[in-house]
Amino acid sequence: MRPAAAGFVEGMDRVLINGRPGHCISPLDRGLHFGDGLFETIACRKGRPRLLSLHLERLVLGCRRLGIRMSDPDELRRQVQALAQDSDASIVKLIVTRGPAPGRGYAPAAAGEATHVAIRYPWPEEDPDAARNGVRVRIAGLRLSENPLLAGMKHTNRLEQVLARSEWQDPQIAEALLFSQSGRLVSGIMSNVFIVRNGQLRTPRIDRCGVAGVMRRVVMREAARAGIDVRECTIRAAELEQAEEVFLTNARIGIWPVRVLGERTLAPGPLTRRLQGLMEPLLEEPVDA
Amino acid sequence: MRPAAAGFVEGMDRVLINGRPGHCISPLDRGLHFGDGLFETIACRKGRPRLLSLHLERLVLGCRRLGIRMSDPDELRRQVQALAQDSDASIVKLIVTRGPAPGRGYAPAAAGEATHVAIRYPWPEEDPDAARNGVRVRIAGLRLSENPLLAGMKHTNRLEQVLARSEWQDPQIAEALLFSQSGRLVSGIMSNVFIVRNGQLRTPRIDRCGVAGVMRRVVMREAARAGIDVRECTIRAAELEQAEEVFLTNARIGIWPVRVLGERTLAPGPLTRRLQGLMEPLLEEPVDA
Repeated sequence: MRPAAAGFVEGMDRVLINGRPGHCISPLDRGLHFGDGLFETIACRKGRPRLLSLHLERLVLGCRRLGIRMSDPDELRRQVQALAQDSDASIVKLIVTRGPAPGRGYAPAAAGEATHVAIRYPWPEEDPDAARNGVRVRIAGLRLSENPLLAGMKHTNRLEQVLARSEWQDPQIAEALLFSQSGRLVSGIMSNVFIVRNGQLRTPRIDRCGVAGVMRRVVMREAARAGIDVRECTIRAAELEQAEEVFLTNARIGIWPVRVLGERTLAPGPLTRRLQGLMEPLLEEPVDA
Repeated sequence: MRPAAAGFVEGMDRVLINGRPGHCISPLDRGLHFGDGLFETIACRKGRPRLLSLHLERLVLGCRRLGIRMSDPDELRRQVQALAQDSDASIVKLIVTRGPAPGRGYAPAAAGEATHVAIRYPWPEEDPDAARNGVRVRIAGLRLSENPLLAGMKHTNRLEQVLARSEWQDPQIAEALLFSQSGRLVSGIMSNVFIVRNGQLRTPRIDRCGVAGVMRRVVMREAARAGIDVRECTIRAAELEQAEEVFLTNARIGIWPVRVLGERTLAPGPLTRRLQGLMEPLLEEPVDA
């Protein structure tokens, strides 16, 4: 067997554990045992984190829902800023778990203080065509399970996403759309989804499963500010098939038009282009919220 | 903020990470990021692990389903045996994750070698009355989400169990029974459940959610060997209410009769007693399978 913590040999300076450079998570951490935690993935440009206040707001809300006593959000804010500042483009991932527990068992009372991990990753190489011409997307075979008590949070129970992402290898396919067990469109694996149907902008409700994405929220806000009718609703396969435009959002990508959806070819449409235009200044010049 | 890996100060000798004493899990481990792993909880008596072959069999099957390349099960067998041998009664928990990933993203291909953690815990103090007179059990408010692709495995996506266990504080209540989103009885939070109805032994099917417990399997096997009709089936609230006997199983507790279920009082019944008698020699004198 290989030595402990192999596979983690370089770049330790880019990891903060409870605010200090570190490379060591306790094997008793409930994040490891139960996925008892939450995360945020923050896009950083020009040395500054983008939409950081919205990320921290969701994290605080998730911790409240799960009863995790996280540290002062301002402390996390400073950590993210510190990791972001000496890189032109990076991704900072925050993970907050309920912390190490000396004993076994699911009862949260057994846990100590929360664990806070902040990791800086390089901005991934990406095809500039994705935002311009759109991406290929498949429909996942896996259907997401539903539990309103977990819906909306970016928690670390992500086996379904891991399995859905294992369904294909073709690097030409950028993402898969997921339906829930009850046949409702939910999101992509790592993105939210919007459709335009009969000229109206719609996105799935995130009340049974799925993550309430930060970029989804910003797109809805900017659309509403621009007078575009945008609503959360139930979207089933038939509605998706009739969509004139489909696009994906997440904190890093902003908006990606979908140009191929399963067997169907779409063109990036006028509403998608208009929203990309509205979002562009927010993405280029990193704003906080 | 507190220093890295606080809360983990004593008993490091009882933890093996990839086969060696250690106290350090990489912050890049996918177990931490996604709950991308599996676990086993093995009861050890008289210095020997109980039903170890069945635990390892389930672990191997789970790794195969998730595409995790775990180490040789014989190597894990030796580790569990080594941890068990100098204690009269202990619990050894095995965790196998997909391992650390240098990059972000759900795609499993990005992961390195699996991480193997073995932790020895003391056998918990327990009320001898639990097995003799039965335990108090509540009905959980939370309903388990359903996904056949995850059903049966003891994976580390356990937020639902954490939340269900947060629903009560009363130490007199030993466990809660969980129904699924579609109204099917599934299990306890940390146990499986059997009912006797019209004299027949039944346990919920584990095909939409829940863990296919090792003790559940042994109880079904021993019942069948003794000529007792035992079947997996769909059990809804009405059937549970009409049950003459209800009992819980897990690898540590063996069989616990339920004596209070919500508002209802039950007596440990004849079939429960008979099965406890059949199981007793297997629990006292630790057998491998």
